[in-house]
Amino acid sequence: MARFLKSRIKAKGAAPGSLIFMGKQKMDGTRIRLMQYSKETNTETEYGTIDKALKSISNTHNNWLNIDGLHNTELIKHIGEHFNISPLALENILNTGQRAKFFEDHNSVTFITKAVYYNQEENKVSIEQISFILLENVLISFQERTGDHFEPVRNRIRNAFGKIRQRKTDYLLYALTDSLVDNYLINLEQIGLSIEALEEKLDNPTKEISKKLFQYKTEISYFRKSIKPLKEALTRLTRAKSEIISEENLVFFQELYDIQEQAIEAADSYFGMTNDLINLYNTNLSNKVNEVMKVLTIFASIFIPLTFIAGIYGTNFEYVPELHFKNAYFVMWGVMVFVAGTMLYYFKKNKWF
Amino acid sequence: MARFLKSRIKAKGAAPGSLIFMGKQKMDGTRIRLMQYSKETNTETEYGTIDKALKSISNTHNNWLNIDGLHNTELIKHIGEHFNISPLALENILNTGQRAKFFEDHNSVTFITKAVYYNQEENKVSIEQISFILLENVLISFQERTGDHFEPVRNRIRNAFGKIRQRKTDYLLYALTDSLVDNYLINLEQIGLSIEALEEKLDNPTKEISKKLFQYKTEISYFRKSIKPLKEALTRLTRAKSEIISEENLVFFQELYDIQEQAIEAADSYFGMTNDLINLYNTNLSNKVNEVMKVLTIFASIFIPLTFIAGIYGTNFEYVPELHFKNAYFVMWGVMVFVAGTMLYYFKKNKWF
Amino acid sequence: MARFLKSRIKAKGAAPGSLIFMGKQKMDGTRIRLMQYSKETNTETEYGTIDKALKSISNTHNNWLNIDGLHNTELIKHIGEHFNISPLALENILNTGQRAKFFEDHNSVTFITKAVYYNQEENKVSIEQISFILLENVLISFQERTGDHFEPVRNRIRNAFGKIRQRKTDYLLYALTDSLVDNYLINLEQIGLSIEALEEKLDNPTKEISKKLFQYKTEISYFRKSIKPLKEALTRLTRAKSEIISEENLVFFQELYDIQEQAIEAADSYFGMTNDLINLYNTNLSNKVNEVMKVLTIFASIFIPLTFIAGIYGTNFEYVPELHFKNAYFVMWGVMVFVAGTMLYYFKKNKWF
Amino acid sequence: MARFLKSRIKAKGAAPGSLIFMGKQKMDGTRIRLMQYSKETNTETEYGTIDKALKSISNTHNNWLNIDGLHNTELIKHIGEHFNISPLALENILNTGQRAKFFEDHNSVTFITKAVYYNQEENKVSIEQISFILLENVLISFQERTGDHFEPVRNRIRNAFGKIRQRKTDYLLYALTDSLVDNYLINLEQIGLSIEALEEKLDNPTKEISKKLFQYKTEISYFRKSIKPLKEALTRLTRAKSEIISEENLVFFQELYDIQEQAIEAADSYFGMTNDLINLYNTNLSNKVNEVMKVLTIFASIFIPLTFIAGIYGTNFEYVPELHFKNAYFVMWGVMVFVAGTMLYYFKKNKWF
Amino acid sequence: MARFLKSRIKAKGAAPGSLIFMGKQKMDGTRIRLMQYSKETNTETEYGTIDKALKSISNTHNNWLNIDGLHNTELIKHIGEHFNISPLALENILNTGQRAKFFEDHNSVTFITKAVYYNQEENKVSIEQISFILLENVLISFQERTGDHFEPVRNRIRNAFGKIRQRKTDYLLYALTDSLVDNYLINLEQIGLSIEALEEKLDNPTKEISKKLFQYKTEISYFRKSIKPLKEALTRLTRAKSEIISEENLVFFQELYDIQEQAIEAADSYFGMTNDLINLYNTNLSNKVNEVMKVLTIFASIFIPLTFIAGIYGTNFEYVPELHFKNAYFVMWGVMVFVAGTMLYYFKKNKWF
Repeated sequence: MARFLKSRIKAKGAAPGSLIFMGKQKMDGTRIRLMQYSKETNTETEYGTIDKALKSISNTHNNWLNIDGLHNTELIKHIGEHFNISPLALENILNTGQRAKFFEDHNSVTFITKAVYYNQEENKVSIEQISFILLENVLISFQERTGDHFEPVRNRIRNAFGKIRQRKTDYLLYALTDSLVDNYLINLEQIGLSIEALEEKLDNPTKEISKKLFQYKTEISYFRKSIKPLKEALTRLTRAKSEIISEENLVFFQELYDIQEQAIEAADSYFGMTNDLINLYNTNLSNKVNEVMKVLTIFASIFIPLTFIAGIYGTNFEYVPELHFKNAYFVMWGVMVFVAGTMLYYFKKNKWF
Repeated sequence: MARFLKSRIKAKGAAPGSLIFMGKQKMDGTRIRLMQYSKETNTETEYGTIDKALKSISNTHNNWLNIDGLHNTELIKHIGEHFNISPLALENILNTGQRAKFFEDHNSVTFITKAVYYNQEENKVSIEQISFILLENVLISFQERTGDHFEPVRNRIRNAFGKIRQRKTDYLLYALTDSLVDNYLINLEQIGLSIEALEEKLDNPTKEISKKLFQYKTEISYFRKSIKPLKEALTRLTRAKSEIISEENLVFFQELYDIQEQAIEAADSYFGMTNDLINLYNTNLSNKVNEVMKVLTIFASIFIPLTFIAGIYGTNFEYVPELHFKNAYFVMWGVMVFVAGTMLYYFKKNKWF
Repeated sequence: MARFLKSRIKAKGAAPGSLIFMGKQKMDGTRIRLMQYSKETNTETEYGTIDKALKSISNTHNNWLNIDGLHNTELIKHIGEHFNISPLALENILNTGQRAKFFEDHNSVTFITKAVYYNQEENKVSIEQISFILLENVLISFQERTGDHFEPVRNRIRNAFGKIRQRKTDYLLYALTDSLVDNYLINLEQIGLSIEALEEKLDNPTKEISKKLFQYKTEISYFRKSIKPLKEALTRLTRAKSEIISEENLVFFQELYDIQEQAIEAADSYFGMTNDLINLYNTNLSNKVNEVMKVLTIFASIFIPLTFIAGIYGTNFEYVPELHFKNAYFVMWGVMVFVAGTMLYYFKKNKWF
Repeated sequence: MARFLKSRIKAKGAAPGSLIFMGKQKMDGTRIRLMQYSKETNTETEYGTIDKALKSISNTHNNWLNIDGLHNTELIKHIGEHFNISPLALENILNTGQRAKFFEDHNSVTFITKAVYYNQEENKVSIEQISFILLENVLISFQERTGDHFEPVRNRIRNAFGKIRQRKTDYLLYALTDSLVDNYLINLEQIGLSIEALEEKLDNPTKEISKKLFQYKTEISYFRKSIKPLKEALTRLTRAKSEIISEENLVFFQELYDIQEQAIEAADSYFGMTNDLINLYNTNLSNKVNEVMKVLTIFASIFIPLTFIAGIYGTNFEYVPELHFKNAYFVMWGVMVFVAGTMLYYFKKNKWF
Repeated sequence: MARFLKSRIKAKGAAPGSLIFMGKQKMDGTRIRLMQYSKETNTETEYGTIDKALKSISNTHNNWLNIDGLHNTELIKHIGEHFNISPLALENILNTGQRAKFFEDHNSVTFITKAVYYNQEENKVSIEQISFILLENVLISFQERTGDHFEPVRNRIRNAFGKIRQRKTDYLLYALTDSLVDNYLINLEQIGLSIEALEEKLDNPTKEISKKLFQYKTEISYFRKSIKPLKEALTRLTRAKSEIISEENLVFFQELYDIQEQAIEAADSYFGMTNDLINLYNTNLSNKVNEVMKVLTIFASIFIPLTFIAGIYGTNFEYVPELHFKNAYFVMWGVMVFVAGTMLYYFKKNKWF
């Protein structure tokens, strides 16, 4: 499966609007968790079937329904019917190749985002689609697999830390998105540190370094491409007319927009940095080639003429007058030293070494 | 015929507005098919002449008239006159070098799109122009040749799968366009897989690989150029004032716009990727040249001076004192080993190997 | 005279607004032709003086006054005064370095365009400025020299082909501009064919090819620069408030805008293509250098050590034990074959050949 | 800690909106200074605790409260509560990785800016975040450490120089920002001078120069990235609706916008310049390699054939007729001189030297 | 002093709004000239002090006060006070590092422009700031030094050529700006001619040529950067609400805008051209290196094996059978010719020469 696209081949020929999971199944089964909280209370329950979970939803609490695993399309369909969500929204959630997106419906808003991880050991960026459906009192979140990026938010709810228990599900949506965007910055920082570590090794250019540099470029490019559309989605969110998102909480999303901007700028900076390092690598390589060439040329230019002179007097002609001159051998040495000296002087003068 | 332009030479001097087929004839004859469907029924008929087909059109059904082959301008003209379509629309349909386009007329809308195929074996992208004229109850589609990209839609109509039989021809237009855009993603994915396969061979740079890389770049660039204008056309469509496209179906076209955006982004990513691979190729080549140069320089720098020393004692001077020294030969060997050792030490210290 | 600018030096110090021909005189004399047509009739006359031509203009016909040659500023001034055209318009017509432009006056519109030719033999793009002044019933066209790009339009008038005789001079303006823009596409196609022919020769990179590639780049860049401003001018034209251009004909100019867009896109594609070919050329050259280096290194690395061994036994030391060993000569051969074989094995293993 | 991002890791999991210092602590303790001035008077006091400082604030004077050191979040919180500043503003001030920003609140405006220093010796650009909260009669400035960039403004207040004592705290905000932006230009000028000094050394390309060039590129890129967002912040400021910024003083901020534009343009120019110098460096290196190659080739091509000829006559075949010819040795010399001369002529003709 | 910035260091710490000359003093003293003209009359006077000049200003004439030399800030201040010009305008005039700018005040407009000169011998572009203050009946122009770019306009006034004497000072402002913009085109044309002359020398790449190419790039980049902001300033001017600029004359400024556009486009074209030439230079250099390498490899690959063969038979082994074979010497020659021939055939076949 090509990286920049999730496989659409299996969906070929399907009617648009029909619910088909497009992506790679990343976990077995489906995990259904419901968190219900108000100013005073907080309960967490894991359900075996979606029916039970849906029945437990209460109008007097905030309900956070979290679904891990998207391949069970029947389950998704069931949720859709229960809350009267448009098939288009569900289709978007099931197609994990989606760009980040925000759209409003009569009674809900759909917000599709991406979680981005950088695995330092494999030097690979991996992307997961996280989708939210926000209704009055209810937030449904869909993840491709059980992950730990929402744990901090759960802890805040458990411990009634900050304002989270005092506000409604729109604030929860903000808190969850904030933890995703924060993760962008943290992961980018890790990439940045890895690149800076590589920078110091550039003085001695080797094949491995060049390979790694291009890998970084690809990964950052992939990272950037994945987070960029969220900017537009956030813009649309902050202009949403839906009353589900209260005006009081909009300012937080605006703040999030700024952090998102910062993340994109950082990705741009690191992208530019890898480009610069690749260029520096190539320049260093050219410097090296130049140096190698100089060593070769100095050796060859000095010794090839000298060998020629020696060759002349190694010929077996019957009559070579110099061979019989007195001290001819030492004169030859003298000539050779003079030739070599002249050459060295020339190379020195031209700053070859 | 140059690739980025369809031949206009034969049209030179023709009055603008006169119907002339500009392009390459891709099939013999013309194939006329009419599909008529409503909630309950569905009939498919192939006609020998356009007259008969036009007479069969019924107001109580949805009529999909599909014309394969554009070189029969008389036939096109006849259709135009029958439905009172503006000559400009027909001219656009006949000029297969058109960019994707959408425009409205008093009683019809014209939508010009492209089908894009990637032939993996020849590594060639080919483009076909698909044009639609949408009228009340009637959709006319024009193809350059009989192809199979609409087969899934036909099957859905035959099997009354999804909503297609319950909606009007504007939904049919959406379903057909959707199948084209879906094909963009599928074809891009195939290109992407081919490129990724090539990436693994880059370690040992050969002429064939560099040639292929540039071919990919050209093909993706051609692909991108062909699909980009559709974005603008879709924007215009979603803002159309015509009542032929019902508000209820507009949301599907908006969804299509998002998928089209995704396709363009994927094409951009692959384009950037080939660029990176070309740069990586060049860097690998430089690495190789550097390596080759080092081997040469090490060999030459070590053996040329040694050969010179041997040459000195191969001279035939009458008086060369060293020749008569005891063990001179072994001393020479010692000197040579020392010289070679010094050189090797120097190269090692400078990390030449 | 620098190419991207027409000489302004002679105009230095002239009052702005004074009529001065800025450009290169491309023909002797001035040619004055008047074509008068209506639905029923058509006459063509060539006049010796502008006075006679102006007197022949009739209100009951469409009058197309064509002036070849711009250096006769008195003549231009005379026309300006006769039709009460603003000096600024005339100044623009006389300055052949102008960008394409459209502007309206109280009773006339001025439209400045470019004709572009590609001379395949010299591989040179040349530009000519074609200006139009459109008045009620009268279209005046100004060319730098007598050319043949309007011949097809003349033929259509002569033969009453298409709608041209039934419409007014605003349609004539469209028809003439259309023939210019059509020429852009035809000329671009010729450039494209030339480039594609060159592409096949890239496998064996030679100086001549690289020179040609850069020439193409320059010429396409010049082409593109020349046709780009027409887009803006056409936009202004389609928004013109002047009643001289009838609403009915505006749709044709909008169509022209699309073709112009297509021409610019084609120029962009070919520009990108030459860039790619230049890069491919450089990569091929690097491939070649790498190959040459390998041949050199293989030969040198194998034979230099062997020659050294032979040199050792060519020395004239009194006591070299090996020289007297039995079969020493054959042992030396054996050592040499072993050394050469080892080297070849190493090179083969590293995929040097 | 990666450079383009301030460490967010410690903040991970914190509730958004909670006050956490994100950045590197750059000084011990916190320094609290209050400057109070009116047309007639001016007092400067340094306080040990924030309470005392806040109590000293007077409604009849302009109060400039300057806080050096941001790690004491309690102190910041205290200020926030005293002046009823929104937690979001305070959070922005404490996160030193912020982009420049401007936003209004009910009774205050927050303006986040950057001070940029270029350290010529280390060739490093360092950034400090400077934040301002402007209230009626009070301006609070927050710095990461005690610096000297506001000293000129203090002197002007002390000496009642210019209009500063006659205007309110909004003018003070302008004066302080102006001194920051002015510093951008001064620091950029210093970078520019360093680059120009390097330019003169480019004729003899060495590894050190290439390294420095890439360093400059990184630093200027970092500089540019840091000052760019201020442009947007200034735009927002000049459109602020808050009455705290008087219309009379807005013109000064508009002027500042122009200087900021000039600074960005200068950074762009220097960025382009380093790029050009890197390219020139690479071209110079290629020139050098070409030169070195020519020397090698000339020497090798002349002497290798000559050595071959000498080698021929160094063979010990029993019957080599030439060896016995009279003057054969001199004939050999003649042939050698001819060969060498021919080669030299060829190289000269081809402009190798 | 760095080129892209005028020294601001001396102004550091000065109150914004205080009049300080920022720039390089380019002439001794200050030259004050007053030109007064109406339809009928024209007088030119040079004054020793500004007082006298100001007293001579007449309401019944157009007054053009030209000040050469900006370092006398007292004089500028005096003018400002006399005409009640805002300090900000004066400050802008004195800061010669300003970007081109236009702004209106209650009774005046300020227009800051640049004169650009290209010195062909030194291959240097130099910039001078020319500022205008336009009041009712009075135009004040400020130049850094006495120059000759306004001489043509003066001559037109002296000779009452064109409309200049019949119109007011707003037309004078246009005429002067026009002469500056015209100069851009003339200077660009000279740069273009120089570049084209260099292009012909590119076939034999030398260090001097590469150096010059990069110089041209720097100069054109500097040129472009200097003239670009004028476009924005002209846009603002054409939208000015001030009644000092009559509607009747606005059309001239619009025309100027077009010429300015043309100048920027020409600068862009030349910039692109130098880039292309630098690339062509590098390609030519690579071609050269390839050629040199081939010569080396051909010589080395042919003669090194031959020398090896000769070396074999130069050994002094006691028993080398071939040495005693009849005609062995000639057989050796035969082998050598065969080896060399094979090699040459191989090189020929691979198109090495």
